[in-house]
Amino acid sequence: MKLKRPGRVTVQDVAEAAGVSRSAVSRTFTDGASVSGRTRAKVEAAAERLGYFPNALARSLTTRRTRLIGLVSNNFENPAFMEVFDLFTRRLQDRGLRPLLLNLTENSDPAASARMLLQYSVDGVILASSTLSPEFVGSFVDAGLPVVHAFGRYTKGGDTSVITVDNAHGGELAARRFVDGGYRAIGILGGPRDATSTEDRLKGFSKAMKKAGLTIRARRFAEEYTHDAGSSALRALLAETQLDGIFCGDDILAMGARDACRELGLEVPEDIGLIGFNDLTMAAWRSYDLTTIRQPIREITLTAVDQVVSLVNEPDRAPESRLFPCSLVERGSLRPLQSAL
Amino acid sequence: MKLKRPGRVTVQDVAEAAGVSRSAVSRTFTDGASVSGRTRAKVEAAAERLGYFPNALARSLTTRRTRLIGLVSNNFENPAFMEVFDLFTRRLQDRGLRPLLLNLTENSDPAASARMLLQYSVDGVILASSTLSPEFVGSFVDAGLPVVHAFGRYTKGGDTSVITVDNAHGGELAARRFVDGGYRAIGILGGPRDATSTEDRLKGFSKAMKKAGLTIRARRFAEEYTHDAGSSALRALLAETQLDGIFCGDDILAMGARDACRELGLEVPEDIGLIGFNDLTMAAWRSYDLTTIRQPIREITLTAVDQVVSLVNEPDRAPESRLFPCSLVERGSLRPLQSAL
Repeated sequence: MKLKRPGRVTVQDVAEAAGVSRSAVSRTFTDGASVSGRTRAKVEAAAERLGYFPNALARSLTTRRTRLIGLVSNNFENPAFMEVFDLFTRRLQDRGLRPLLLNLTENSDPAASARMLLQYSVDGVILASSTLSPEFVGSFVDAGLPVVHAFGRYTKGGDTSVITVDNAHGGELAARRFVDGGYRAIGILGGPRDATSTEDRLKGFSKAMKKAGLTIRARRFAEEYTHDAGSSALRALLAETQLDGIFCGDDILAMGARDACRELGLEVPEDIGLIGFNDLTMAAWRSYDLTTIRQPIREITLTAVDQVVSLVNEPDRAPESRLFPCSLVERGSLRPLQSAL
Repeated sequence: MKLKRPGRVTVQDVAEAAGVSRSAVSRTFTDGASVSGRTRAKVEAAAERLGYFPNALARSLTTRRTRLIGLVSNNFENPAFMEVFDLFTRRLQDRGLRPLLLNLTENSDPAASARMLLQYSVDGVILASSTLSPEFVGSFVDAGLPVVHAFGRYTKGGDTSVITVDNAHGGELAARRFVDGGYRAIGILGGPRDATSTEDRLKGFSKAMKKAGLTIRARRFAEEYTHDAGSSALRALLAETQLDGIFCGDDILAMGARDACRELGLEVPEDIGLIGFNDLTMAAWRSYDLTTIRQPIREITLTAVDQVVSLVNEPDRAPESRLFPCSLVERGSLRPLQSAL
C-alpha cells in the first residue's frame, strides 16, 4: 500500500467514501468514543481503501494525549544502557506509546530539558539513570509531568515513582560472598562518588563487613562507568595497598579492573578476586567470567513503563515506588566457596 | 523557574502582559517571521516572566514542521549501536531536532512503521542499520518522507541518501593484511548472510584474495551480531578445516571467536589470527586487543544528520549519497608484519 502524507486524505474524504458523517469518522478513531459496529466497519474499510489514518499530533490537541513518552538518560556510554534501552523502547511500543529521546549531555540544563518535553506535550517521562543530578527529576516534577525514575534512589511517599533495585542489599550480598570465601584484605572500586547508587551499595557493603568484624582496606571511585576508569582505579588501589578482593561499582568497571590485572600479571581469581554489579551479557564472556550482583533489569524496565502508563491514565494517582532485590551470580572471578569439611 | 503545563499560559496572556497584539507574539516565536526588535524584546520579557513557551506540536500545524526526526534501527543488541546512537542523538539535539525512536523488532511491519512516523508528522527519517530489509526503506520513501539510510548499501542516484562506509574496501584491506602477514589458510566468519554489508565485505575480500592467488578455505555466517554467534561460528569453522586466519564480520563476532579460541586452548595470534570490523571501543580492551577495520562512525552519523536537515529544508533537493573509506587498525590479534629483510 502506498501511504500518503498526512493531510492528503481527510476525514471528509473518508466520510464521503463510507457514506457517514465526519463525526462518525472521528469517533471511530477516538479511543473510547461511541460508534456502532456497522458504522465502524464502513469507516475502517473506507480508511483502509483510501490510505487514511488520523494525525496523532492534530488529534492530541483535542484528546490532550500525544502518546509520546520522554525517555531521558545520560548513560549512553555504559553497555548496560543498551539492554535497558532495548527493553524500554519495546515495552513502550507494545503499549502503543512512542519514545521521544533526550540524551542528557554535559551541557544539558534541567529547566531547558523540562521545557523541551513540555513543548512536545509528552504524556509522561521515564528517567533511566542511577547517576543523574536530582535537579532533573525536580524540574520535570515542577513542570507537572508524570515522572518515573528507573534505577534511581528508592524513597517512599515522594512525589516521583522510583522503580529501582535495592543497592544496599546488593552491597551486602557482595560483602558476605567475600567473607564466606575467606577474603580478608578487601577494597572498593566504586562508581561515580556522587551517585546515590554508589553510596547505597557502599553502605550495604560496609554494614556487612562490619558485622563480620572486617574493615575496608582501601577505596577508589571511578569518575564514570567506563573500562578505562576501571583499569586506572585498579592500578591506583593496588599502588596504595595489597588486596585480595575488590568490590567493583559495576561490571564495566570490573572488566576494566580485570584487564588491568592481566597487564600487571595478576591472576584472577588466584591472586585477586573481583565482584561486579549488573550482570551484563558480557559479564559471562570467557575473557571475564565475572561473578557479579544481578539487577533485575527486565523487571525494572517493564514495571517503570507500566507505572508511567498508570500515572498518565489516572492523573490523581499517587506515585508508587518499587524496590527489587538483587541476587549473586556465581562465575569464575572469585575462588570457589570451600565445601563443608 | 517553575514551568507550567502547555496551554496554561496562552499567547493572549503574553500579548496582554507585553501590550502587543497576539499576532506579534506569534511572529516573535516563528522562525523567519518579521517583527521589530523592540516588540520582540517586550514579548520575550513577558514570556520569560510568565513562563510561556510555544507548543511545538500546535505550532507544527501551521509551520508544517515538527522538528521531530524518526530514528529507526534494529541493532539494539550490537554494542556498535551505542556509539552510533549517542552520536545521532547529540547531533540531532545540537541542530534543534528531536529523535522519535523506532526500535524495529521481529514483529515490525514496513507499512505500519511508515504509518506511525506519518502519524507523528516527523520531518524526516534516519535509518541506522546495515542489516535492515530493503522494504523498510521502500515504505518510508513511498510515504513521501525524506529518508537518509546510514550504514546501508551505497547506490548512486537512487531515491534515498545513503551515508555509509565502503565495505568492499574494508574487505580488501583485511585480505591484503592477511596476505602480507604470510597467512595462507584463511576463512570467513561473516555477519548475517542476507545483509548487503556482509556481501560487500566478502566481495572486496574475495577479490583481493584472488589477486594474491589465494582461495577462501571455509566460510560460515552468523545469524546475528552477537558474541555467542561468533563463538559458535568459530567452532564450526575449525571443526570443518584447519585455518590460520579468520576475517570476522564485525568486532563483536571477532570477540566471540577470540573467547572460543581461549576455550579451545588456541593462542591468538600464535595459533590463529583474527581481524574484526568497526573498531568498537572494546576492540582495544586488553582481553581482545583486536586488529580491525575501522569505520568512520562519527563522520557517517554527523553527515547523515546534516543530510536529513538539508532534505527537510529543501524539499526539491535530490538525495546525495556518500561513501567513506575504511582504515586498518593494527593491534595484537595478528602476527606482526615482518620488517623487510
